[in-house]
Amino acid sequence: MPQPGSVYYREYLRLDKILEAQELESAKHGKPAHDEMLFIITHQTYELWFKQIVFELEAIIDILDDPVVQDKKIGRVLHMLARITKIQRILIEQIEVIETITPLDFLEFRDLLVPASGFQSIMFKQIEILMGIRKENRIAADCEFFKTRLSFSDQALLEEVEERTNLLELVDRWLTKGPFDRFEGFTFWKMYRDAVDKMFKSDEDIIRSNRTLTDREKDSQVEEMLKTRDRFDSLLDKDKFECRRAQGEFRLSHSGFLAALFIHLYRDEPLLYTAFRLLTLLADVDGLFTRWRQRHMVMVQRMLGTKIGTGGSSGQDYLSQTTNQNRVFLDLFNISTFLIPREDLPPLPANVRRELGFFFRGPDAS
Amino acid sequence: MPQPGSVYYREYLRLDKILEAQELESAKHGKPAHDEMLFIITHQTYELWFKQIVFELEAIIDILDDPVVQDKKIGRVLHMLARITKIQRILIEQIEVIETITPLDFLEFRDLLVPASGFQSIMFKQIEILMGIRKENRIAADCEFFKTRLSFSDQALLEEVEERTNLLELVDRWLTKGPFDRFEGFTFWKMYRDAVDKMFKSDEDIIRSNRTLTDREKDSQVEEMLKTRDRFDSLLDKDKFECRRAQGEFRLSHSGFLAALFIHLYRDEPLLYTAFRLLTLLADVDGLFTRWRQRHMVMVQRMLGTKIGTGGSSGQDYLSQTTNQNRVFLDLFNISTFLIPREDLPPLPANVRRELGFFFRGPDAS
Amino acid sequence: MPQPGSVYYREYLRLDKILEAQELESAKHGKPAHDEMLFIITHQTYELWFKQIVFELEAIIDILDDPVVQDKKIGRVLHMLARITKIQRILIEQIEVIETITPLDFLEFRDLLVPASGFQSIMFKQIEILMGIRKENRIAADCEFFKTRLSFSDQALLEEVEERTNLLELVDRWLTKGPFDRFEGFTFWKMYRDAVDKMFKSDEDIIRSNRTLTDREKDSQVEEMLKTRDRFDSLLDKDKFECRRAQGEFRLSHSGFLAALFIHLYRDEPLLYTAFRLLTLLADVDGLFTRWRQRHMVMVQRMLGTKIGTGGSSGQDYLSQTTNQNRVFLDLFNISTFLIPREDLPPLPANVRRELGFFFRGPDAS
Amino acid sequence: MPQPGSVYYREYLRLDKILEAQELESAKHGKPAHDEMLFIITHQTYELWFKQIVFELEAIIDILDDPVVQDKKIGRVLHMLARITKIQRILIEQIEVIETITPLDFLEFRDLLVPASGFQSIMFKQIEILMGIRKENRIAADCEFFKTRLSFSDQALLEEVEERTNLLELVDRWLTKGPFDRFEGFTFWKMYRDAVDKMFKSDEDIIRSNRTLTDREKDSQVEEMLKTRDRFDSLLDKDKFECRRAQGEFRLSHSGFLAALFIHLYRDEPLLYTAFRLLTLLADVDGLFTRWRQRHMVMVQRMLGTKIGTGGSSGQDYLSQTTNQNRVFLDLFNISTFLIPREDLPPLPANVRRELGFFFRGPDAS
Repeated sequence: MPQPGSVYYREYLRLDKILEAQELESAKHGKPAHDEMLFIITHQTYELWFKQIVFELEAIIDILDDPVVQDKKIGRVLHMLARITKIQRILIEQIEVIETITPLDFLEFRDLLVPASGFQSIMFKQIEILMGIRKENRIAADCEFFKTRLSFSDQALLEEVEERTNLLELVDRWLTKGPFDRFEGFTFWKMYRDAVDKMFKSDEDIIRSNRTLTDREKDSQVEEMLKTRDRFDSLLDKDKFECRRAQGEFRLSHSGFLAALFIHLYRDEPLLYTAFRLLTLLADVDGLFTRWRQRHMVMVQRMLGTKIGTGGSSGQDYLSQTTNQNRVFLDLFNISTFLIPREDLPPLPANVRRELGFFFRGPDAS
Repeated sequence: MPQPGSVYYREYLRLDKILEAQELESAKHGKPAHDEMLFIITHQTYELWFKQIVFELEAIIDILDDPVVQDKKIGRVLHMLARITKIQRILIEQIEVIETITPLDFLEFRDLLVPASGFQSIMFKQIEILMGIRKENRIAADCEFFKTRLSFSDQALLEEVEERTNLLELVDRWLTKGPFDRFEGFTFWKMYRDAVDKMFKSDEDIIRSNRTLTDREKDSQVEEMLKTRDRFDSLLDKDKFECRRAQGEFRLSHSGFLAALFIHLYRDEPLLYTAFRLLTLLADVDGLFTRWRQRHMVMVQRMLGTKIGTGGSSGQDYLSQTTNQNRVFLDLFNISTFLIPREDLPPLPANVRRELGFFFRGPDAS
Repeated sequence: MPQPGSVYYREYLRLDKILEAQELESAKHGKPAHDEMLFIITHQTYELWFKQIVFELEAIIDILDDPVVQDKKIGRVLHMLARITKIQRILIEQIEVIETITPLDFLEFRDLLVPASGFQSIMFKQIEILMGIRKENRIAADCEFFKTRLSFSDQALLEEVEERTNLLELVDRWLTKGPFDRFEGFTFWKMYRDAVDKMFKSDEDIIRSNRTLTDREKDSQVEEMLKTRDRFDSLLDKDKFECRRAQGEFRLSHSGFLAALFIHLYRDEPLLYTAFRLLTLLADVDGLFTRWRQRHMVMVQRMLGTKIGTGGSSGQDYLSQTTNQNRVFLDLFNISTFLIPREDLPPLPANVRRELGFFFRGPDAS
Repeated sequence: MPQPGSVYYREYLRLDKILEAQELESAKHGKPAHDEMLFIITHQTYELWFKQIVFELEAIIDILDDPVVQDKKIGRVLHMLARITKIQRILIEQIEVIETITPLDFLEFRDLLVPASGFQSIMFKQIEILMGIRKENRIAADCEFFKTRLSFSDQALLEEVEERTNLLELVDRWLTKGPFDRFEGFTFWKMYRDAVDKMFKSDEDIIRSNRTLTDREKDSQVEEMLKTRDRFDSLLDKDKFECRRAQGEFRLSHSGFLAALFIHLYRDEPLLYTAFRLLTLLADVDGLFTRWRQRHMVMVQRMLGTKIGTGGSSGQDYLSQTTNQNRVFLDLFNISTFLIPREDLPPLPANVRRELGFFFRGPDAS
């Protein structure tokens, strides 16, 4: 066992490894390109941050992968998710640094890197898989890349990760098993349906009375509204919901989605507040990955114009497709579709409110 | 004339106007919604920043709208463009603040705002027009909105702004008239064509020798490459270029685009360095508006789900279309397509290099 | 009552007021200075954000100023505090924009503003007062400024704000009255004292066995440690604590400080987690104001060098003093001094843990 | 020589080294602490960024360490300095990530790291030395640490770096040798002295006529002003300047400082614009290191309260002292003291303006 008082900064951080790991391909070819150093170091910091995110995701999964998730561990999950969002901000901000490599300077070493590609970042693929992107969600280019562009050992490693229960599944299970929206004698969803009916009636009135619209515009907006209403119907009918889910419109299960909606609607109750914050942080993480991909896309466009990337793909197209497709927690964005104004919400019965409060307050807590 | 020593902070900043300009619509309807204050104040700060950007753009246009743009004023243009990018970062960052309005809280006053819409920001429209978005570049929804959703006085104001020479046109003129790529006895573009031919030959070799690709993939990549090559041909043939430009592929004129490319290739020469920085800042401004729109889109998606916006449009679709369409200086991103590696660049003749240097150094400057 | 469907963007936001409130002092003197526009607009956005922060602080104070603070309202307090931190980030980021006014350009209108001063921002003073800065905490320069540099009506307004119970007092009361660290038959602070004794013994061993230190250094570090230990003694002895508090070392009351410490130590329990998050956000707000002042100071130093400010004071000195003095929630930073490692913490008895949990889980919750 | 087409992402980035370099001290002691992973990874990314900054500084020094600095290389220096500022923003932003380690969690592994300390970052010390911090500028604690806390090989490495000509010296030489303020028959500094005299007369009038000040305040402000005037006298008298410089008030040489001031005053001339931008970026770099230290200080205060750091020092005091002392380019902040309003500036003679322009424009350029 190590002695206290013997730790030296350089050794503790293994700087012998870290600071000796920059080998310029351009130097090997006899034409050292100044900017390749930045290219390597930026990517290495990305990989370090990806490792950290994987580390946090695994700890979150460990906590949630429990038949009964302990309340006192939820605070840690929130803390780790918040940490991931802070790291994601760094990931996005760092693109500003890469962008200091001008397209002309990039040309000095770009061809030497073929066919390496950011796609081959196993760490980032692990993040995607742990979050909840499954083989069947992947875009076509990704599927092909998996088979043709990764070493066998990397493929094997990722397949192993895919065996694990992912965050999306665990959140769904936690929502489904939680006490959130099911209490004895409490028929919330019927009251909700009534409130929804009332709201759509009012929305239609607003459109019809909008004096700045032509009749044709009004019709087209009402039609649009009816499509939304159709979605509400699917929401409250399990079979319809599962049918739409099979088509990729939802990723959470029916009861998971309903619980998430209930949490959003009554988030002020103490038990739900914590749950609401967890869902908010998951949406933050999802939104930040989207922003990272969008930011990445603008950078690639500037760096390459309409050229192909070093990995042989059109970077822009690939990034554009994955930006739209890889939205694990998009359900938490779409939940807004189903919110109804607070004043239209049925009040919770006293017994339900008590169940959702702190024990300390006792049965009379308001 | 005012007396020195009599200025009071509150009066100087007209805080009587500024701090009394928040009138909650929800309060007028007897149901004050806490978050409407933030909604109003955030939008007011946006409008103030938009006014500042318009103010800077107008000053830039004043400088550039001169038969001979004075060298000593270019530094000011750079400074003002850099300032605009700093403001744009605030515009983007502020979305974090708006996002603290949760979808449920937004519902408390959202319907009261119909049919007002962010689209009606005349200040922002002025920015777009001054930058270089013309009637013919607008997406269909925008054209219709102009006619149906703006007051007559606002329409008139914008039409007046459209009369002015915009930044895109002035930059194009400055590029065209500048000494950048035309010097006696200097046949740069012929040398460039030779260098390009050589480069494509090499690119094809890279693809063909890529062992990780199947033959079919190789064919498809070579085909892709030939399309790029086709673009190079259009670049060097004025008629083809103008033809593609008419289809919206380019916005700069042929000679403007060539000058911009020359500046990128030889940016180290003092005269070109300043020009390069100006083009870089224009691309920065364009890229930051794109990022602002993308960020805006993620926010709207979270706020509304798939609902329609207060202005009666699907916010997401509108933002998605304008994000792609309103790229005034996209040419400066696409210029990367036509860069060739520094080592393949023909060296500039001594007389050209002298012309591009500082007077002080005299004819022997290296 | 207003009709739905009649809201127009420009009117809703009162842009007639907002966008017409920029009157350049330099223009009045016949020498319009381009950068004065930015100077005005930036300050106006600051004032708008200050108004928003005051609005949020008042809402928070309304919730906390209640004999029994309702649990279901704590979520709103957290949300509003988090919003304030987002706004504070904008306040800091905006300094980047002001810094685009170079010192030379500032000289063009600076003298015209005498004796106006940012100190005269009544909105910012309100924030300070609502947070908890009292007359007796103010630095000397501030006290003098209050009397000599503010209009009588502004002085009166601030005195009225000072009458209100401030956030610091309310947080202290909430900590004191909360159930956080007092439960029947629970003698936590005795156990804590034992744990502390053990920890100091270990710390001294670490110093004494540090082979990189000379004996003199060891003595000096142990001496330093004993001072810290002295602080622990004051912590656990109410009289000593109040004595140090009277000297300005603490701002929270003895029982408030102890409750805050307890919350930090056992933050994983559901009831305490929410409280912990509230304390964390208060420390965030305090830390962000400190960063704002520090950032401001670097900016002023660059703008003015060693010149005096328009208000007749040395901006740097003033900012430096207020940065150190105006730390309302510094206690929440200093609480780290009194933390002891988790493994040394006495476990909470089962009945206490139950009290701190959710009702739903019932008496057997783990 | 390597074959094209054989580069694999994982190997190119040496991820075997990078991702295997995290060895938790807490795990070695049998009590793995979750947050130590973040602690290590954050510090490793810092070290990578430090390496990149050193790499850029060395390239800048190589360019400037030339009897005649080539104009066409100045663009590269500007580009590299701008890159350093982008990296510095990441350094600052990353503190947000470290702050997600709460003080309680830090306690779980903090004692195990004794006596390692961030002070021992040889990479950061190299940055300081390359920028221009010499042995004689170091604070006492730093001097002692160098001798007692660094391994012999690390001390030797830093001593070697100290042998090199540093950035401050090279910038001073470039300012001194540049054509910036010396042209035949041009007696600028006499004209400047006259303008300064006029300005002080006016400043005194402003103070004397300020009706909000008492006579005593006026006297005190005039006295303050006379101290500033004294500094102007030192500026224009080489002996006085060198005397103040010996006391640490200035770091640039007399002629270097005057050239920097001239550049600030006439920055719109093309040759000076580039020089102005270089000085601006140097001040930016200096200011950003100051902000990093200030930010660091707030973080340490929150993490440790008033405890001593793992390296045995009071982190806060150390950081506070170095924040004030390690300002290599503070002269560029203080230059604002000596600026005079543009309208008071003597106009440059035509021949001087021509010398400062581009060759292309010829002798008639305006």
